[in-house]
Amino acid sequence: MTSTIDPATIGKANRARRHVRTLTGYLPETDASGKEQWPKGDEKVWRAGTRGLDTDVPSITKTFVNHVQTSLARQAYNLDNLGAYQAAALSVRDNLLVNWNETQMNYTRKAPKRAYYLSLEFLMGRTLDNAMLNLGLKDKYVEGVKKLGFSIEDILEQERDAALGNGGLGRLAACYLDSSASQELPVWGYGLRYKYGIFQQLISPEGNQLEAPDPWLDNQNPWELPRLDVSYEVRFYGSADRLNDGSGRSNWHGGQEVLAVAYDVMIPGYNTPTTNNLRLWESKPKRGFDLNSFNAGDYEHAVESSNSAAAITSVLYPNDHTSFGKELRLKQQYFWTAASLQDIIRRFKNLGKPITEFPDYAAIQLNDTHPTLAIPELMRVLIDDEDLDWGTAWQIVTNTFFYTNHTVLPEALEKWPVPLIEHVLPRHMQIIYDINLFFLQAVEKKFPDDRDRLSRMSLIEEGQPKQVRMAHLACIGSRKVNGVAELHSDLVQTTILKDFVEFEGVSKFGNVTNGITPRRWLDQCNPELSALISKTLKLDKNVWLKDLTKLEGLLPFAEDKKFRTEWAAIKQRNKERLAHHVQTTLGLTVRTDAMYDVQIKRLHEYKRQTLNILGVIHRYLTLKAMTTAERAKTNRRVVFFAGKAAPAYYIAKLTIRLIVNVARVINADPDTKDFLQLYFLPDYSVSLAEVLIPASDISQHISTAGTEASGTSNMKFCLNGGLLLGTVDGANIEIAEEVGESNVFFFGHLTPAVEDLRHQHLYHPVPIEEKCPALANVLNEVSKGLFGDGGVYEPLLNTVRHGDYYLLTDDFDSYIAALAMVDEAYLDTEEWIKKSIRTTAKMGKFSSDRAILEYAESYWNIEAIPVAAAK
Amino acid sequence: MTSTIDPATIGKANRARRHVRTLTGYLPETDASGKEQWPKGDEKVWRAGTRGLDTDVPSITKTFVNHVQTSLARQAYNLDNLGAYQAAALSVRDNLLVNWNETQMNYTRKAPKRAYYLSLEFLMGRTLDNAMLNLGLKDKYVEGVKKLGFSIEDILEQERDAALGNGGLGRLAACYLDSSASQELPVWGYGLRYKYGIFQQLISPEGNQLEAPDPWLDNQNPWELPRLDVSYEVRFYGSADRLNDGSGRSNWHGGQEVLAVAYDVMIPGYNTPTTNNLRLWESKPKRGFDLNSFNAGDYEHAVESSNSAAAITSVLYPNDHTSFGKELRLKQQYFWTAASLQDIIRRFKNLGKPITEFPDYAAIQLNDTHPTLAIPELMRVLIDDEDLDWGTAWQIVTNTFFYTNHTVLPEALEKWPVPLIEHVLPRHMQIIYDINLFFLQAVEKKFPDDRDRLSRMSLIEEGQPKQVRMAHLACIGSRKVNGVAELHSDLVQTTILKDFVEFEGVSKFGNVTNGITPRRWLDQCNPELSALISKTLKLDKNVWLKDLTKLEGLLPFAEDKKFRTEWAAIKQRNKERLAHHVQTTLGLTVRTDAMYDVQIKRLHEYKRQTLNILGVIHRYLTLKAMTTAERAKTNRRVVFFAGKAAPAYYIAKLTIRLIVNVARVINADPDTKDFLQLYFLPDYSVSLAEVLIPASDISQHISTAGTEASGTSNMKFCLNGGLLLGTVDGANIEIAEEVGESNVFFFGHLTPAVEDLRHQHLYHPVPIEEKCPALANVLNEVSKGLFGDGGVYEPLLNTVRHGDYYLLTDDFDSYIAALAMVDEAYLDTEEWIKKSIRTTAKMGKFSSDRAILEYAESYWNIEAIPVAAAK
Ligand SMILES: Cc1ncc(COP(=O)(O)O)c(C=O)c1O
Ligand SMILES: Cc1ncc(COP(=O)(O)O)c(C=O)c1O
Repeated sequence: MTSTIDPATIGKANRARRHVRTLTGYLPETDASGKEQWPKGDEKVWRAGTRGLDTDVPSITKTFVNHVQTSLARQAYNLDNLGAYQAAALSVRDNLLVNWNETQMNYTRKAPKRAYYLSLEFLMGRTLDNAMLNLGLKDKYVEGVKKLGFSIEDILEQERDAALGNGGLGRLAACYLDSSASQELPVWGYGLRYKYGIFQQLISPEGNQLEAPDPWLDNQNPWELPRLDVSYEVRFYGSADRLNDGSGRSNWHGGQEVLAVAYDVMIPGYNTPTTNNLRLWESKPKRGFDLNSFNAGDYEHAVESSNSAAAITSVLYPNDHTSFGKELRLKQQYFWTAASLQDIIRRFKNLGKPITEFPDYAAIQLNDTHPTLAIPELMRVLIDDEDLDWGTAWQIVTNTFFYTNHTVLPEALEKWPVPLIEHVLPRHMQIIYDINLFFLQAVEKKFPDDRDRLSRMSLIEEGQPKQVRMAHLACIGSRKVNGVAELHSDLVQTTILKDFVEFEGVSKFGNVTNGITPRRWLDQCNPELSALISKTLKLDKNVWLKDLTKLEGLLPFAEDKKFRTEWAAIKQRNKERLAHHVQTTLGLTVRTDAMYDVQIKRLHEYKRQTLNILGVIHRYLTLKAMTTAERAKTNRRVVFFAGKAAPAYYIAKLTIRLIVNVARVINADPDTKDFLQLYFLPDYSVSLAEVLIPASDISQHISTAGTEASGTSNMKFCLNGGLLLGTVDGANIEIAEEVGESNVFFFGHLTPAVEDLRHQHLYHPVPIEEKCPALANVLNEVSKGLFGDGGVYEPLLNTVRHGDYYLLTDDFDSYIAALAMVDEAYLDTEEWIKKSIRTTAKMGKFSSDRAILEYAESYWNIEAIPVAAAK
Repeated sequence: MTSTIDPATIGKANRARRHVRTLTGYLPETDASGKEQWPKGDEKVWRAGTRGLDTDVPSITKTFVNHVQTSLARQAYNLDNLGAYQAAALSVRDNLLVNWNETQMNYTRKAPKRAYYLSLEFLMGRTLDNAMLNLGLKDKYVEGVKKLGFSIEDILEQERDAALGNGGLGRLAACYLDSSASQELPVWGYGLRYKYGIFQQLISPEGNQLEAPDPWLDNQNPWELPRLDVSYEVRFYGSADRLNDGSGRSNWHGGQEVLAVAYDVMIPGYNTPTTNNLRLWESKPKRGFDLNSFNAGDYEHAVESSNSAAAITSVLYPNDHTSFGKELRLKQQYFWTAASLQDIIRRFKNLGKPITEFPDYAAIQLNDTHPTLAIPELMRVLIDDEDLDWGTAWQIVTNTFFYTNHTVLPEALEKWPVPLIEHVLPRHMQIIYDINLFFLQAVEKKFPDDRDRLSRMSLIEEGQPKQVRMAHLACIGSRKVNGVAELHSDLVQTTILKDFVEFEGVSKFGNVTNGITPRRWLDQCNPELSALISKTLKLDKNVWLKDLTKLEGLLPFAEDKKFRTEWAAIKQRNKERLAHHVQTTLGLTVRTDAMYDVQIKRLHEYKRQTLNILGVIHRYLTLKAMTTAERAKTNRRVVFFAGKAAPAYYIAKLTIRLIVNVARVINADPDTKDFLQLYFLPDYSVSLAEVLIPASDISQHISTAGTEASGTSNMKFCLNGGLLLGTVDGANIEIAEEVGESNVFFFGHLTPAVEDLRHQHLYHPVPIEEKCPALANVLNEVSKGLFGDGGVYEPLLNTVRHGDYYLLTDDFDSYIAALAMVDEAYLDTEEWIKKSIRTTAKMGKFSSDRAILEYAESYWNIEAIPVAAAK
């Protein structure tokens, strides 16, 4: 921890800390008559140089060639596909920028209330295709690059995913940005610009997951705008001295100061010039002199400490619902919230309104508890810097924030050790204590002498060490709290935040069921299906992609034989595309005349990939036991898995190993390989999902009831006409409500039963051989070494044998039965296609446009701010 | 130290290591009839998009505005000077790129022999002004930015120096690149892309030097082209197993592999389309899986080790002629030479010639011993990879390299501990031993039984630990060896390499006196003088800036009173410019009606800033002792110092402290401050030199005789009409030969006397009070606390009192006498101006064009390859 001095200040009087002001969105000044003044230079010269959108092929190719020559320093003679991708991307970027400039200027002019989506993860995937589609210029680009000697498919394949997220939470944030822009809402995202995104996953010859850093910025990123003019200082460590003047203020000083520098990512709306902004912060050393190093007389140490500032945004933590507690992670969270708040406050202050009106101009959404430090940080700014009293400050804070909970799993609720916060953020720990004191006093008033309740509700959990409960802080510091699917929101209100509902009233708590953007998850990833839908509905895709309930118009066509044939043919071609992908990337041949059964998501015990793989083994053993004639009658299945495990999550990694080794055995077994194939596709990503999802006949969403908050991949499969096999959990329930239970394959125990079952497992265990002989047999075969050394898998098998927290023994039989129903249904081809069509037709609700409009209306209170199309 | 595996190779057969091939400079293929084929796409579309130079104001402003909108994502409303600089730079860059593409293509077509200048330092300074001048477009840009509402001066001030060097050696490399391009020679530079250049220097209130990292790339660098398509693998550590098949080959494997990625910097020639290339390497982690981390099961460690690969090119070592021995510095040297050689060999191989012809197509200049590892590295490649026998390989090596020595100071000669090289580069240590064996066998043959000679000449110095003498390795591995000024080249041949001259013959040894580019060091930094010269010579500056001997035409004008007045007026305005600079940056008022006396260079005992400051104190004491009337008759002097000290160089830093504190006292003394002012300007840089040099009347180059190899700032001062006060050392001697001894103020003992004097100091010391009472008095005053606590300065004063290695006691009196002569001469104003004119007029020899042509003709054997001007 270091303290830096600015060379300009040495030996000079202390001066007030100055914002490095951003210049974004300045407006023209007006003259006495109110006429806008041209800011500088000769307006005619400026106007003559200003560019509009490139919308025709010759302008597009010209810009492309110009970028080849200048930005890339290349020539036609030496342009490979990567170079062509870069040139195409730069030309699309130029177009986006024209719109982005217009949009930001328009917001500044209109000065509406804005919403800010704070998310530690944005899992954006690739951008080029999406940007061309949203601009409505894909055809023109296809033609342009062809004229220049390239194919668009080859070019698109060059882009690296922006994988700044672990899974659902991060991808949700990305979908919400797309919908906000498409709905012309003044919403900005705020996140971190990790140098390394989620690790690259490789499967070793033994079947183990290996993790490598993902230096996704190596090839340079045409989609970001470094905004060197936008930077803020963020402090860590040091000490906070209470002023003891009755104001509650403190003077926080010393410690380490680092710079947050903004990188802006353009978020184009679909079929609108509105292009919103995602601002990602990079940490950098403050330019200046590191005093600690001078004490040591050591220039090398000064360089090192510069590098240590940069380390804050070095890596995305690869944990999903798992371990916490790392100091660097805490620094990431504070760094990000402090920089974002400074930026938001500065923008608000440009309006010249009193600070008490802040909540009328800014709504801040906390995506999970990760940005919860924004609550004490805003208190700190209001009290220490803005001189407000506690009550006024708290009023502002609690009208500004909105908190989305994403999990009720106890182990996934963030807690930070008090000593750690005290060390890293001494002033914030004071504020948290103060918040807690005032809060508990109020609780005590309403529920006198209920000591248990006070200790349950306290922000501080007793223990060694004491811990700060971030969900409690997020809850009491926010105006509203929501879950992400009906069931989950109910659970939030009846379990982890039950006391808070009783104290604050139920109206503070709500639900916004998650959604997905149909632009990426249908039009982009399944263009043939999109075209068929437009043709069938006789609607331009511009219409139905923005009002997804229009899909209902497909329902009658389920009865149209010709339509069904076209529908099925597209699914078939999507399977072939997937098979081709596996062939080219892994060198494996996948048969395409089979049902495609897909489970792709983070590896986690609660998501029960283990149930799936044990089910696969069961099917394999069953097939082995059949006669050739019997087998010939079975439904051919190809099972796909993909997903990453947190690097330290031993059991999840063992599941991967089991899947890989089962695949090896059964894909090679001449008895069964025509009927059952199994693949683990490494390095799951948004781009891989875009290939897998459209190819799926059935997908599995089989979490233990009550554990999956929503799930969003379930929606993606259904939107692409894949059916759903799942538990009565998360958004599965609402999907079934929409598409009808007859089109969904449900199984397993329901949420209310879970607690009791777990209790029984612990206190009245029934031997697995008795309770579920089929499962016991499967476990035995694994133990006995059917898939290589069984001893390796014992720790995994024991999670089922002992305790069975995730209820595999309870759900296995009904799971197998559900699979049998899937097989049966699939063999009735025409009926299956009908189900598929009906499923897609009823997915309108799950557009993220609907979700984001709910947030805009019922939470943030913001409105669409359309921008005039650029010339 | 780590080993990485490429995901693509796991579980696959080992394949040969592949070059990641560069695509630079591909040529069109030809059809059967020999006609060139358009490579891909529609040639018409490509041609329609291709741009030429922007040479008129409207094209320039259009490109500027386009960059504002797209590259910078800004608008007229929010463009500050920094943004305007970036837009202007990007537009100039576009122009440079057109020429750069043409030049590189032309070299590839013509396939001439090329020269490569390997330098660990390139002290480029700022680029924008130089680039506009070299393109001949400065006027147009001045007009263009004015139309857009900016002033060119404000824009130019925004640029940060590229300060990838310590001092003379690095700036020389920069001048040589300018001259190579201006002379249309096919020369590329190779260096490292340090994230932090030479540290930023700040003076603390006590007068101490503080050092801060210089993150010069923070604002993004428009002058570099990241070439992600050009990258190589470089190995460290591991083990080297001799094959023992008599071939001498080894298999070097394991250890850490990192990637070298190229960044190209365009080097525009003056008044020619030729735009050469400076390739800087950045280190990056190899994309892949770090095996050691997997053993530890530790993803965070994998991320750390990625960051450690990047650390190799993190920082320029701030030592100039001082301490060595750091492992990271060795890694820098090897990383850079290995990447550069791979690149050079690949380019050669594209020609399809046998490897034995390598020296006919590539000459590699070693700038000092820093790149000496290139010698064993090329041996390694030729033997281990190319399967050549030792003799053939050595033949190639010794015809490829050329070595420039830059110092005869014993403490400045690079030596690396054998155990360190063994650890970091095991294969290279084997090769060095082999080279040494063969070499010493040959010496023994020529000088039988001369054990002393063998141990003096060995590549290995005995001791604890043994050390590798890099200068010996560079000498025997090169075709020619040169020093950088006549005296220095003589000293090289008679002292440190004497044995080698006897063994290899004198013809291998030569001299190329350093030079400076008159474009930057006259035309750019002193535009008024440049204009006056053109007007007077009646020559376009295009002519005389490329044939600097034309300056002789000024000689007759020394007698022209009107010309002298103009000449003196320009010097005066340059003083005012400097005074203005000091006023705006430091807030200090410098008088301009005085003689400006300047010493600017690295702080080092051999450069004797101490002599200068003690002289200043002497003058101060003398002035104090005068009556007011006496003082009124003295010559007014303002003394300027600037320069950085190596952070660990205690004595040099103490000298800075003394200067700063003397300045404080004497600038505040009402008795003397009208006659003597003293300034230490912090953070010396190329840009500061450009302001200081044209303002100087007299500059000091007062190294102990025989210690300064050449000096180049002496040439810069003289070229700008400043006179020289110096010792008979380095290039001072040749300057005096040119301008005549009457125009130079020499003092001090000569080189042959130095050894004896040092001997006397040690064995027959004379008390300083006796030997040099004036100096003794000065030291006493410092001790007694005239400039603050004298105890602080004791260690510095003791270097003079005891041992006096740099002969201050011997030279002080003649130094003071020389200063008196300077004063006297300056008071004769007209005569002084004549001296000034004559000095400039006779500086033709010191153009770096002359120097680079000597290298091209007498060393590298390369020719000019002109390129047709782009449309
Ligand atoms: C790459 C990626 N990871 C994770 C998810 C979330 O998946 P689930 O909702 O199944 O947890 C998605 C959603 O499709 C995704 O695309
Ligand atoms: C920035 C800088 N450093 C160092 C030098 C070398 O100075 P000298 O030749 O006096 O050692 C120069 C030459 O002008 C320079 O510009």
